Amino acid sequence: MSQLVRTAVALDKDLLKRFDKWMTAHGYTNRSEAVRDLIRSALVEQEWENPDADVMATLSVIYDHEQHDLAQQLTHIQHSDYRVVLCSQHVHLDKHRCLEVIILSGKAKQLRKVADAIISARGVKAGKLTLMSKEI
Amino acid sequence: MSQLVRTAVALDKDLLKRFDKWMTAHGYTNRSEAVRDLIRSALVEQEWENPDADVMATLSVIYDHEQHDLAQQLTHIQHSDYRVVLCSQHVHLDKHRCLEVIILSGKAKQLRKVADAIISARGVKAGKLTLMSKEI
Amino acid sequence: MSQLVRTAVALDKDLLKRFDKWMTAHGYTNRSEAVRDLIRSALVEQEWENPDADVMATLSVIYDHEQHDLAQQLTHIQHSDYRVVLCSQHVHLDKHRCLEVIILSGKAKQLRKVADAIISARGVKAGKLTLMSKEI
Amino acid sequence: MSQLVRTAVALDKDLLKRFDKWMTAHGYTNRSEAVRDLIRSALVEQEWENPDADVMATLSVIYDHEQHDLAQQLTHIQHSDYRVVLCSQHVHLDKHRCLEVIILSGKAKQLRKVADAIISARGVKAGKLTLMSKEI
Repeated sequence: MSQLVRTAVALDKDLLKRFDKWMTAHGYTNRSEAVRDLIRSALVEQEWENPDADVMATLSVIYDHEQHDLAQQLTHIQHSDYRVVLCSQHVHLDKHRCLEVIILSGKAKQLRKVADAIISARGVKAGKLTLMSKEI
Repeated sequence: MSQLVRTAVALDKDLLKRFDKWMTAHGYTNRSEAVRDLIRSALVEQEWENPDADVMATLSVIYDHEQHDLAQQLTHIQHSDYRVVLCSQHVHLDKHRCLEVIILSGKAKQLRKVADAIISARGVKAGKLTLMSKEI
Repeated sequence: MSQLVRTAVALDKDLLKRFDKWMTAHGYTNRSEAVRDLIRSALVEQEWENPDADVMATLSVIYDHEQHDLAQQLTHIQHSDYRVVLCSQHVHLDKHRCLEVIILSGKAKQLRKVADAIISARGVKAGKLTLMSKEI
Repeated sequence: MSQLVRTAVALDKDLLKRFDKWMTAHGYTNRSEAVRDLIRSALVEQEWENPDADVMATLSVIYDHEQHDLAQQLTHIQHSDYRVVLCSQHVHLDKHRCLEVIILSGKAKQLRKVADAIISARGVKAGKLTLMSKEI
């Protein structure tokens, strides 16, 4: 094992409380251990093998449109690669939260790029990219 | 948003280095944001283990609408549980194949039932249920 | 956006007064903005008079999917001209009735053909074609 | 006829040029006359008779999302009355222009209010509200 280091993570109190419950339910006694496991499983997530493969995907995201001008920002990202975005559907969950489902089609690497930009935007609370094949 | 707190995470240098690479590759500029996203998606999986939990999902399916009167059949399944189907989006991929993305909201067990009925219908070539939480 | 110019419009006081009321009732705070919108929609109608014009439209239909295998039939019509159908949205109003909104793009004559086939299908209870222009 | 007054309208050069062509094609020899006719037909447009009637509508809008933070603004308007907005679909026409189709359900007066706020927002280039009845 290489050298142990510490890094600080900022999160809101409520999320931390729910995470602590989840940890206990999953048998963890130590937060660092639990976070390390989440990180490891993110790392082993299978990458699309061929970045030039012609694929489809649906990207589902939940966000608060008032934070960080997110509605504006996500529309901007989608237009900058508008050729791979077929269409999207938006449901207004309540005064603040939005569910948006975006249908993508193009080269694996392009889809990954758009999806990463959207999921990693500050204020996006959940984002999941579901890969589909066109070859079926 | 509730109060922001900080927690320290210990991990070995090599894992942190690989995580930082993954973060950059996925467009994150901030470690806390990346860890929060991993935590939130772990919480979603847990929520779905309770069949009575109030959850959301998107169901993406590809099918040939000419086979087995599938367009008719899938519309019928969705209407029989229409209260959990918020809306759906349809893209006509070519003369035969359709991509349909259905947004579901309700109890985990109801959503699984509708999704199973659709995915297992003869002629549906691919179906993926993406779990989302309402609690985030 | 091209260069902004000003043009004077003469109208009788009473008509202007009623127009100002209409503007306010419709949320406009600016006369030029309101007149521009009227002009743009007049131009759209004209564009559609040319059967080869490249236009857009949304087609809204309400139907009972159980009657005459309508879900199957409407999907079939859309796929037979799938190049002009960008995507569609479906809302399940109740056990029987569907609202479907279809986004069309192509030559005016092709769009009219698809819309006519859908609206005139037996069992379609209401169908409205809303003309849009790509030139604005 | 009441007293004649003059009002100035600002519009971009290109739109004015196309309007002048439209005028000629429609037999107008005078801009004021043409604008007056557009205003009159907007005024006679039938209002929904009963503001408390429970109705449905689809609202189709084309806009440049970069202007006036429009994506942000339109999302905000929709959320402020989110109970009447069932869902919406967005197509990215090109780098700048968006087509958005919003499905509304509720009292006539509420739908009219949301639609007016969206259509009259500066930068919305075209907006059409298509009324549907739920009683069919």
